[in-house]
Amino acid sequence: MKETFLYETIANQLQSLIENGVIKVGDKLTSVRQLSKEKKVSLTTAFKAYEELIYRGWVESRPKSGYFVKSTVPLLPDVSYSESRLDNFEENNVSVIHLMKKIFSNEDLIKLSITSPDIDLLPSEKLNKSMREVLQTSPDSCLGYGNAAGNIELRRLICRYLFGPNGYAHQDEVIVTQGCIEALAMSLMTVTKPGDTILIERPAYYSVFHIIKNLNLKVIETEIDPLSGPDLTHIEECLRSEKISAILLTPNFNNPTGSLMSDSDKENLVKMVTKYEVPLIEDDVSGEIYFGLNRPNTCKHYDKEGWVLYCSSFSKILAPGYRIGWCLPGKFKEPFMEIKLMHTVATASPTQAAIAQFLQTGRYDLYIRRFRRTLQIQYMQYSDAISKHFPPGTRMTKPNGGFVIWIELPNGSSGIKLSYEALKKGISIFPGTIFCASGGFENFIRVSFGKIFDKTIEESIATLGTLITSLNSTSRNQ
Amino acid sequence: MKETFLYETIANQLQSLIENGVIKVGDKLTSVRQLSKEKKVSLTTAFKAYEELIYRGWVESRPKSGYFVKSTVPLLPDVSYSESRLDNFEENNVSVIHLMKKIFSNEDLIKLSITSPDIDLLPSEKLNKSMREVLQTSPDSCLGYGNAAGNIELRRLICRYLFGPNGYAHQDEVIVTQGCIEALAMSLMTVTKPGDTILIERPAYYSVFHIIKNLNLKVIETEIDPLSGPDLTHIEECLRSEKISAILLTPNFNNPTGSLMSDSDKENLVKMVTKYEVPLIEDDVSGEIYFGLNRPNTCKHYDKEGWVLYCSSFSKILAPGYRIGWCLPGKFKEPFMEIKLMHTVATASPTQAAIAQFLQTGRYDLYIRRFRRTLQIQYMQYSDAISKHFPPGTRMTKPNGGFVIWIELPNGSSGIKLSYEALKKGISIFPGTIFCASGGFENFIRVSFGKIFDKTIEESIATLGTLITSLNSTSRNQ
Repeated sequence: MKETFLYETIANQLQSLIENGVIKVGDKLTSVRQLSKEKKVSLTTAFKAYEELIYRGWVESRPKSGYFVKSTVPLLPDVSYSESRLDNFEENNVSVIHLMKKIFSNEDLIKLSITSPDIDLLPSEKLNKSMREVLQTSPDSCLGYGNAAGNIELRRLICRYLFGPNGYAHQDEVIVTQGCIEALAMSLMTVTKPGDTILIERPAYYSVFHIIKNLNLKVIETEIDPLSGPDLTHIEECLRSEKISAILLTPNFNNPTGSLMSDSDKENLVKMVTKYEVPLIEDDVSGEIYFGLNRPNTCKHYDKEGWVLYCSSFSKILAPGYRIGWCLPGKFKEPFMEIKLMHTVATASPTQAAIAQFLQTGRYDLYIRRFRRTLQIQYMQYSDAISKHFPPGTRMTKPNGGFVIWIELPNGSSGIKLSYEALKKGISIFPGTIFCASGGFENFIRVSFGKIFDKTIEESIATLGTLITSLNSTSRNQ
Repeated sequence: MKETFLYETIANQLQSLIENGVIKVGDKLTSVRQLSKEKKVSLTTAFKAYEELIYRGWVESRPKSGYFVKSTVPLLPDVSYSESRLDNFEENNVSVIHLMKKIFSNEDLIKLSITSPDIDLLPSEKLNKSMREVLQTSPDSCLGYGNAAGNIELRRLICRYLFGPNGYAHQDEVIVTQGCIEALAMSLMTVTKPGDTILIERPAYYSVFHIIKNLNLKVIETEIDPLSGPDLTHIEECLRSEKISAILLTPNFNNPTGSLMSDSDKENLVKMVTKYEVPLIEDDVSGEIYFGLNRPNTCKHYDKEGWVLYCSSFSKILAPGYRIGWCLPGKFKEPFMEIKLMHTVATASPTQAAIAQFLQTGRYDLYIRRFRRTLQIQYMQYSDAISKHFPPGTRMTKPNGGFVIWIELPNGSSGIKLSYEALKKGISIFPGTIFCASGGFENFIRVSFGKIFDKTIEESIATLGTLITSLNSTSRNQ
């Protein structure tokens, strides 16, 4: 268990008040002396609590004025919930595909597009050590196909470490996959047939569209709120009026918006899919990267009857190159396993064994706490730089976890044009359009804060700011 | 380069004569003295040449009689070429799927079903050493996603080592995949749309059917000869009369028959698909495991215009658990790469780097020669045991490479019944029916000779023989 110091406890209490809106942005906080009295702690402890909140990005210290709740660029507003439908993806934007190929094939770009952590944030030394230990203790174990459902020890440890204090699962429920994307693709294969209609969030992770297209599925998109995720009333309307074969959602830290569903919404959603007997595919790939005080719950946590197919991965938190993810397919375990067997036989053995060793030796717990903290700080650095360099009229999300900031550019801006111009300067970002099946979000971009913030990143963000301004003035002059 | 001794040269010449039918099964060979005179070599060299052929399984020494070309159980006959067509796979045999799941989920079986080498045949120590070297020399290199097309050094080495002396390819043509099965699946995704018709061989590797079903494709099956593979005349008829979107074949060592297409057939097939502009997906997963003197050519070798999508893997020859395969998609490289990016992002980095290191240090060449030789010996041991223990009326293939023997049981036998009865005795085999989309081959089974032959294997084969006899007498009495 994590040891909590007194100043952290106080910082946590204050953070809750800010998060819940009891103390608002711009509010002045009580003085250190006053806080020390109220909480019956030493002046040092009170001081350290504020320092902690500054460190976490919630509070700023203004010289000779005291402590204030920090303001940021205005958050994105609530959306008006709406839906769009697509019977096929043939008309996929060609220029967007062209852009993405350019980004993926060029290794020298400053990649503000990629949602994986900076290599320097990863525990390469300890992970390599784990791999060496595994090779030494069981030299043959990594050569064979291994258990088709995955390394048993790894599955046990995933259950123990990867579901937070409220989670519970048994190793037999877990099937190891090649990253989260394979878990998602196989979940879809398991519960749909070509021609079926599924319900997805809008915006959503772009890779999912390609899988949907390949499986020949139709989609209904449900607009999500960038803070709180999907609207259950709308989902229930869809379930009532249509034949929906599956729902695919990212309850924790949607990519690109970073939205986070409340516990009660999660619980109600699971009740709803259970009632309507519609499988819910839960993408929780960023669930471990939370900036709040506790790991957010999963829908799987509320799943009594097995309608949730839970998908996650180590790619975003530990070792992208290892390509190890997992699925808890609930009541669909048997058909899922069949598809896994036929499509990829099994997941690679040595990488599974090395991660199991890393978890088992307790290296994970220590590492992931530091990792989350670092990412939160990076978020703030990126967010500050965007506030500083982007033109007025820019709005962005304040995610409570994950890797990305979703940015609305001033009216009339084009995310695609900006992405192409940025590429010329050696910087990659993704335009908003790629995150929805049916177009839209033309003046949005997604910026990832996975890379360590430094002078180059700050300059790149400044360059983006300049480009937005100049592109907008060009388009006004046309 | 491999050093060839004089006795090996002579053995090679004799083997060619036997393979080409100039010397026939049962023929007596010239005496050692006569051979020494004819070839102008010492008696010792002549003697060693015959010993070599005994070792390779072509020749037997009969006491006081001399050397004879060895006989085996009668080979399977030529088939009458025919075709069958299937518009969907919905009616897949449920009892077969049930059987396969039982086999895959039980680790304690004597697996005569699995087509991968015995773990003890694999170079675990040297491969582990390669992994350790890689972790040491570039500790960070394995953590990131790496190049989406795969480790560049590995792609270069695949071109250098994995295409035989006549092969040629450039690393830019290669995309690394998660095993051969991913290469095949993505090739199909690249060149077909749901509802398209493809031409496949009959019998064929069963995993392919599942992919075809998932992609919602229709198939025409073309019957293959268990020795020489498909009939080009029939393929051309299909191409002329139908809209075929792709052809999927295993020119080298079809699984399950072990058939091997001639060089001229390969060349003509490539000319044909080029003329009709139909992509040819070439599954060459067993091409490196040849028992003849030279590596058989690939269709890719004759491919001037890029219509061949070549697929192979290290799973059968080096490290099943590493799940590293590759594809040379020819002119379809761009769309293939797009699918790879969307579906699995990239293949795992550490396993790729370890195999590259293994190849680069020259460990592969030495290892693979010994490996091929061992498998050939295992083939003969299995084949001898089957000849000895299976009832009269049994016929089997004599593959020139690969991992499997395709066995026709006496008339009236049921491969599925036998497989279920064998399971009860702790032995797994695959019934012939699973190797064709449209049923048939009811009295066939496939036995893999990947596991090292020992007393347990011999006893298992004897058990199978007894089961066949008793099942047949039961069914006659019904």
